[in-house]
Amino acid sequence: MYDLEQLGKKAVQAKYELQRMCTEVKNNALRKVADALIENSHRIIEQNAIDLKHGEEKGMHPGLLDRLRLDENRIQGMAEGLKQVAELPDPVGEVLETIERPVGLQIEKRRVPIGVIGIIYESRPNVTADAFGLCFKSGNAVILKGGSDAIFSNIAITTVIREALAKEGICEDVIQLIESTDRSVVQEFMRMREYVDLLIPRGGAGLIRSVVDGSTIPVIETGTGNCHIYIDEYADFDKAIPIIINAKTQRIGVCNACESLVIHEAVSDRLLPRLAEALKEYHVEMRGDAKVQNVIDCVPASDEDYGTEYLDYIISMKTVSSVDEAIMHINRYNTKHSEAIITENAENAEKFLREVDAACVYVNASTRFTDGFEFGFGAEIGISTQKIHARGPMGLRELTSYKYAITGDGQIRK
Amino acid sequence: MYDLEQLGKKAVQAKYELQRMCTEVKNNALRKVADALIENSHRIIEQNAIDLKHGEEKGMHPGLLDRLRLDENRIQGMAEGLKQVAELPDPVGEVLETIERPVGLQIEKRRVPIGVIGIIYESRPNVTADAFGLCFKSGNAVILKGGSDAIFSNIAITTVIREALAKEGICEDVIQLIESTDRSVVQEFMRMREYVDLLIPRGGAGLIRSVVDGSTIPVIETGTGNCHIYIDEYADFDKAIPIIINAKTQRIGVCNACESLVIHEAVSDRLLPRLAEALKEYHVEMRGDAKVQNVIDCVPASDEDYGTEYLDYIISMKTVSSVDEAIMHINRYNTKHSEAIITENAENAEKFLREVDAACVYVNASTRFTDGFEFGFGAEIGISTQKIHARGPMGLRELTSYKYAITGDGQIRK
Repeated sequence: MYDLEQLGKKAVQAKYELQRMCTEVKNNALRKVADALIENSHRIIEQNAIDLKHGEEKGMHPGLLDRLRLDENRIQGMAEGLKQVAELPDPVGEVLETIERPVGLQIEKRRVPIGVIGIIYESRPNVTADAFGLCFKSGNAVILKGGSDAIFSNIAITTVIREALAKEGICEDVIQLIESTDRSVVQEFMRMREYVDLLIPRGGAGLIRSVVDGSTIPVIETGTGNCHIYIDEYADFDKAIPIIINAKTQRIGVCNACESLVIHEAVSDRLLPRLAEALKEYHVEMRGDAKVQNVIDCVPASDEDYGTEYLDYIISMKTVSSVDEAIMHINRYNTKHSEAIITENAENAEKFLREVDAACVYVNASTRFTDGFEFGFGAEIGISTQKIHARGPMGLRELTSYKYAITGDGQIRK
Repeated sequence: MYDLEQLGKKAVQAKYELQRMCTEVKNNALRKVADALIENSHRIIEQNAIDLKHGEEKGMHPGLLDRLRLDENRIQGMAEGLKQVAELPDPVGEVLETIERPVGLQIEKRRVPIGVIGIIYESRPNVTADAFGLCFKSGNAVILKGGSDAIFSNIAITTVIREALAKEGICEDVIQLIESTDRSVVQEFMRMREYVDLLIPRGGAGLIRSVVDGSTIPVIETGTGNCHIYIDEYADFDKAIPIIINAKTQRIGVCNACESLVIHEAVSDRLLPRLAEALKEYHVEMRGDAKVQNVIDCVPASDEDYGTEYLDYIISMKTVSSVDEAIMHINRYNTKHSEAIITENAENAEKFLREVDAACVYVNASTRFTDGFEFGFGAEIGISTQKIHARGPMGLRELTSYKYAITGDGQIRK
C-alpha cells in the first residue's frame, strides 16, 4: 500500500516552510538546482534510457519516444528554464489592494501562495523540472504524478532536485513525486482535498476528463483547444492567409493551433481559391460545408468535424452570413481557448472581442500567441480553459491566492 | 423525468443575452424586480404559509421555522437588497491590465461574467432574491436549487422575479429554479459541467461536503468557520475581553463567530479569571486544556473540541508557550476562515498575519468583521474558505472572470 497520506502531510509541512522563505533564498536554490541538473545529467540520461528501452519494447510511437527522450541539450534546457524563473519577480507578498473602513480597520489584500499543488502529467519528463520551478518560486509545495512511461526519468530528476535542495538546507519535501504507477493511487490522490489545494492536469483530453470527473480537489482544466479563425466580410486577405497558415501549420500538435475556419459568405468566393492553394502547399486537408464545396474541391464537413480538435494537418470550414452567426457557431463548438477574427471593421472586431466566450480573443493575429512567454509572463504552467481562478496562460501570479490582513485597535462589531 | 438539460441550455442562451446587456438596463431591471416583490408580497406570503404548514407538520425546529418565515418586513428587506445592488458599480468590462508586446500586439485583460452560476442552498428563501441580484448584476445567469422545505416560497419568489423581467423585455431564463425536490436531480445538476461554470453551495457543512464530493463543476466552498482568537503574551486585556465576547456571543450561529481561544501561558493566570467572569455573564460554556483547568473552573477540552465549529454558547481553550505554537495549533485545526491575534507586539502581529493560513487574519479586532458589507463590498454571496478563485467575502467582483482581448495587425508567430 503506497502511503499517499504521508506524502500529503509532508507537503503541508513543507508548504509552511516555503511560505516563510524569502525571495533571495528561493532564487538561489533555483540556480543551485539548475546547476545540479547539469552536473548530474549522466545519471538522468542513464535512467531515461531505461524508460526509452521499455517504451521501445512496448512499441511506443516514435513521436512519443522522442518526447520521452532526454539528452544533454534537453537537460540544459530544463536548467535554463529554472534560471529564468529565478530572474522573474516574486509574486508572493504583493499588496493587491488596501481598504480603510470607517470603523478604523485597515484591510490589506496580500498575494500569498496557494499551498500544495498537485500536477498530473503525461510522458514528457521535462515537466518535472518546469513544474517544480514555477511552484517553488510562487511558494507552493508540489506533488507530482508523472506518466508511468517516464517513471525512471522522473525519479532521477526529482532525486537530483531534492538532493540539491537538501544541500542548501531547504526542506526537500517542497517537491515530491508519486512513485507508484498503480492507477488506484492516482484515484486516491485526486481525493486528498485535506492536503492538496489545487490539481492541475497536463496532457490529453482523456487525462483531463478523468481528473475533472474523479477529483474532489479544485481542478484547473488546461490545454484543450478547438480554436477558430473567422474571416469577416471586411477581412484583409493579405493578413488572413498568413495568419491562417501560421495558426494551422506552424505547430500542429499544440492547443493554440487553429482547427476550424468560419468564413463570411460575402468573401468566400474570392478568399477560398487563394486560401485552398496556400493550404495545399502545406498539405492541409480541407473539410467544408456545402457552400465551401461549391467553390473549392474539399472533403464534406460534418457536425463532428466542427467539434474536433484535430492536432493534425486537417482544417474544417464553415460559411456564415453574419458576424453574429460566426460568434454563435464559435461559442457552440469552441473549447473556450483562443479565437480570432480577421477584419478591418472596428465595430465587428469589438463585437467579436466582447461576445466570443474564450480565454483569448484576437483581432488580426494568429491564435498561436496564446502562451505565457508570448504574453510576457516569463513562464507558463499551462493554458486554463475554465473561468474559475485563472483563464488563459498561467504564469507565476496564477499560482497564487490572496488573504486579507486586517489591523485594528480593539474594534468589535455592533 | 425532470429535464435539467433543457434548463442548462436555456441558461446558456440567457447568459449570452445578459453579457450583452448594459449597466443601465440591468440596474433598471433590478429596481423593477424589487418593486414587483413588494407589490406581490401577498402572493409570496401565501405560498410561504404552505411551506410553514408543512414544516410545522413535520415538527421542524422553531429556529428553522423562523428562518423559513416571510412577512412584509422580510420581503421589504429582499427588495431593498436588490435596490442596493443596483447602486453598486458594475464590475463587468473593467480593464484589469494592458500589456504591449514587442511584436506589436496590444493585450487587454478585461473583467467578464463567469457565465452560468449554480447555487445550492438550504431553507432561507430570501437567498433566492439575494443570489439572483448578485448574479444578475455581475452578468451571470443563475440556476437555483433551494431546499425542499422552502419550495413553495422559492417558486413564488422566482415567478415574481421572472414576470417582472419579462415585462422589461429581459429574457426570464437569467433566473431559473429547479423545482424538483428529488435528490437524484441535485446529483445530476452537480455534473452539468457543460452548462454550468461554477457551483456555490450555501448551507451547513453536510451540504457543502456533499457538493464538493459529488460535483464535476468547479465549486467554491463557503461558510464553515472554526475561528480562533489568540491572546498573545503582549495582549492588552482591555481589548482582548470585549473582542472575545463580541466574537463569541454577538451572533452564535454564524461562520465568523469565534469557537476557540488560544492563550499564551505567560498571561493565562491573569487573563483567565477575568475572562471566565465575562463569559459566564453570557452563559458561555468553557472547555479548557489541563493548564486552563488549573486556573479556572471549566469542562476538560478534547482534541475533538479543537476541531469543532460549535455554533453555540461553547468555547474551547488551549494554552501555548509561544506565538509559533499558537500558529501551528490554529493551522492544524482551523477551517481557513477567520483568525485573530490580540497583541501590542508588532513583530508577533506581523508573524501571525503572515503565517496563519486563513482568508481573513486580524490583529486586535473581532473575527465578526469577515463580511462583504463590513469590508465595503456592498453585498455578499458567501465567504469562501478555499484558495482557488476567491477567498473570504465574495461580492460582485468575485462573481466575475476575465478574458484577454488581443489586437494586432497581421502578427504571426515565428
